[in-house]
Amino acid sequence: MNYESVMKLALERAFYFPSCEVYGDAQAGFWEYGPTGVSVKNKFLELWRRELVRRDRMLEIDGSQIMSKSVFEASGHLGNFADPIIKCKKCGLTFRADKLISEIANVEIPESADLEDFDKMIQEKNIVCTKCKGEFESAKKFNMMFRVGIGPEDEEAYLRPETCQSIFVDFPRLFKTMRGKLPLGIAQVGKSFRNEIAPRQSLLRLREFYQAEIEVFCNPGKLNELDKFSEIENTTLRIQISDDIQVMTCKEAVEKGVIPNKFVAYYLGLLTEFYKKTGIDMEKSRFRKLGEKEKAFYADVAFDFEVNTTIGWLELVACNYRSDYDLSSHAKKSKEKFEVMDNDEKVLPHVFEISMGIDRSLYTILEHSLKEDKENERMVLSIKPYLAPTHVGVLSLVKKDGLSEKTDEIYRLIRTKFDSFLDHSGAIGRRYRRLDEIGAPFAITVDHQTKEDNTVTIRRRDDMAQERVNISELESILAKETAYP
Amino acid sequence: MNYESVMKLALERAFYFPSCEVYGDAQAGFWEYGPTGVSVKNKFLELWRRELVRRDRMLEIDGSQIMSKSVFEASGHLGNFADPIIKCKKCGLTFRADKLISEIANVEIPESADLEDFDKMIQEKNIVCTKCKGEFESAKKFNMMFRVGIGPEDEEAYLRPETCQSIFVDFPRLFKTMRGKLPLGIAQVGKSFRNEIAPRQSLLRLREFYQAEIEVFCNPGKLNELDKFSEIENTTLRIQISDDIQVMTCKEAVEKGVIPNKFVAYYLGLLTEFYKKTGIDMEKSRFRKLGEKEKAFYADVAFDFEVNTTIGWLELVACNYRSDYDLSSHAKKSKEKFEVMDNDEKVLPHVFEISMGIDRSLYTILEHSLKEDKENERMVLSIKPYLAPTHVGVLSLVKKDGLSEKTDEIYRLIRTKFDSFLDHSGAIGRRYRRLDEIGAPFAITVDHQTKEDNTVTIRRRDDMAQERVNISELESILAKETAYP
Repeated sequence: MNYESVMKLALERAFYFPSCEVYGDAQAGFWEYGPTGVSVKNKFLELWRRELVRRDRMLEIDGSQIMSKSVFEASGHLGNFADPIIKCKKCGLTFRADKLISEIANVEIPESADLEDFDKMIQEKNIVCTKCKGEFESAKKFNMMFRVGIGPEDEEAYLRPETCQSIFVDFPRLFKTMRGKLPLGIAQVGKSFRNEIAPRQSLLRLREFYQAEIEVFCNPGKLNELDKFSEIENTTLRIQISDDIQVMTCKEAVEKGVIPNKFVAYYLGLLTEFYKKTGIDMEKSRFRKLGEKEKAFYADVAFDFEVNTTIGWLELVACNYRSDYDLSSHAKKSKEKFEVMDNDEKVLPHVFEISMGIDRSLYTILEHSLKEDKENERMVLSIKPYLAPTHVGVLSLVKKDGLSEKTDEIYRLIRTKFDSFLDHSGAIGRRYRRLDEIGAPFAITVDHQTKEDNTVTIRRRDDMAQERVNISELESILAKETAYP
Repeated sequence: MNYESVMKLALERAFYFPSCEVYGDAQAGFWEYGPTGVSVKNKFLELWRRELVRRDRMLEIDGSQIMSKSVFEASGHLGNFADPIIKCKKCGLTFRADKLISEIANVEIPESADLEDFDKMIQEKNIVCTKCKGEFESAKKFNMMFRVGIGPEDEEAYLRPETCQSIFVDFPRLFKTMRGKLPLGIAQVGKSFRNEIAPRQSLLRLREFYQAEIEVFCNPGKLNELDKFSEIENTTLRIQISDDIQVMTCKEAVEKGVIPNKFVAYYLGLLTEFYKKTGIDMEKSRFRKLGEKEKAFYADVAFDFEVNTTIGWLELVACNYRSDYDLSSHAKKSKEKFEVMDNDEKVLPHVFEISMGIDRSLYTILEHSLKEDKENERMVLSIKPYLAPTHVGVLSLVKKDGLSEKTDEIYRLIRTKFDSFLDHSGAIGRRYRRLDEIGAPFAITVDHQTKEDNTVTIRRRDDMAQERVNISELESILAKETAYP
């Protein structure tokens, strides 16, 4: 299945759709999750909490999205988090200078290029507006943070461009009040905001998006001293090396020097274990070590976790060894102490970050799970039962003869514990198809026999097998089959 | 326990604390949830989903926080969502005009007062700046929405001041794709933003805050036709009537005309059932019908759900019958169709709203749960086990003799399923006290006997009773004791 099939499903079955779509001034890059999407997202996050946060004894926080100017002066975002743009003098259309020049003139833009270089290239190569052939104004920097004015005085603040800044700023209090010990992971799920010049492809480049970020604070002198490494040492990683994807265990990756230390390998291993359980086809995944030019300005060593989809490789997670870049910047700017004691040693912790894009991960799960079953003329979302938006459909074969009431009764039994969908109307086959399409792993059907012996049929989504079970068994069957692994 | 005790707990145990606190330019009205707070919040929201969203077959969405200008032109927020302010000419301090005048001059400000009236009152009553005695500039309107500029063109958009606007704007698509039927509840949890002039009291008046809003769309001609009313008719409500709080069932409230119809009574009943399960002392709660002057500009009939705390009555939920105010405004402005079919009748649905403040609810739960146990010299957060930030502490009596390893092993068994806290160090009594303070309902202790017969002690928070159980029983005991009701 491709991007278009997923988008069709998303719009028709309310996984996601554009924000403010009834209005003409709705801006690009803002999408809403509908009921099916919210349900998958919440379950995905519970899996993330189980497999990363709780498993690794991390702390989870939930910080403000609006943060003070000082935070972003220290983090470097006010200075560095900007794209070069050029605006057409005639029609006013704005482009990213580097992208447009490299596309039109077919040249590689040197990393060191500054605004004057862009102006020179535009002149030399005679580059004009692609829409109206107008000339461009001089290139300028466009900061991608959204400014927000606080109070009647309009004090300067910003919507955070990444969730991790709250984690860094809150670190001293958290370490102290939670009796922290290195290594300490601090996690956060929430919205981040980037004023993209060209948002596109629904969930894949948004101006308002969800991140699940983990920052692990560690003693840089002890990156190979990690007892729990043994829990993960045999997990296999798929690592892009030159043109090849090589498969090796975490242990081998460290021994061969492909990953610099046990510490980084441990978290790439945990991440792999997590994604296996999402149902993403791991044969289509890879860790890719970023070159000097690709890395973010704060990263020392960086691996992207990427997954191949019908629209190419998507970066789902950025894993950055940020060293002490963040804590030392905030310490310097705030004059606050960010060092902590690690046994008898005073250290300014280094940070390894696992920055997950939730929206992209959800897109990929949908694309990899959606299947066309031509034999049975149906579309099936073969999503893991614990991630399914609806666990179970509760259907009456017909409405009459008291079956409708019996169905309602069963529905009331299970509705608070499972995501259930009650459906009385339409041909039963069509109701099954609709449940298949939204990935409901089970359908319970109430028929005339139910009134005689208190049994119902349970139909399974993937093989369409049906089985008769007693109503009293339903709760335990569903609990077992929809449980997290 | 009072506001100060809760605040002390919040800061010392990382329930919540000020955002960006290491910086001098941190603005008031922004707070972060620490690990203990996040954990309670997530569990509170799961309870809300169970008792309201799933129970009532509502749809849950998650929309963009940044929304287009048109939305707020239609909703009335651009025109009406403003406070009158006055600024001191000398020191620049800004006040809410109505509040300052009514406090200083001890007068009641008529609802109809406009900016000129404020200027006149200030002159007449000789009101000056409370800080520097300076004179005031003329009063002006200050809109409480935060403006955000989109893209290089700086297109006008706003951070939503209430989550419900996405629900209204998305209604046509949701009703269609989810095969909606009236009455249909649509729910959303998320951040809203209000540029308060005087934020205060930590979680109680924030500029960035969490709402859980439910909008129930209904046929205004059928407000007394609701089969499921029978599920809730005997639930007792506490309703403020004149100076009295009267206790009556939902059914009686409708019969006596205290609540205008079954439809509104049903949702006030559901809400009551929900709050009972949060552990808030319901004897300190009331529904208060708002008078004409108190209601929001969009409300037809309004009941506030309020709870008495040591700092007075707090409004936790606003229940507003918004009639067709929202849908007709958006229909008119967008030219989109918002009518739907209810059987054979075409209707523009009316809306009943249950707008819950999450932050205030969490504060109230903490205040009502926190107890001083003088006899045992401890503070106990007697929170419901299913809302507890930590379900269970896992402690080794001593570190040596292999007890530490055994404890780790037990911790690994349960850590993904329960919120568990592993603790090896310090006197056991002090470790129990700390668990009591964050409300962990259980503590498991591993001692020398554990190595002999695989049993551990389970200690209960509230009565401090200890019981020996087999390790193999732990999971089922904890599952049962921490299950949602």
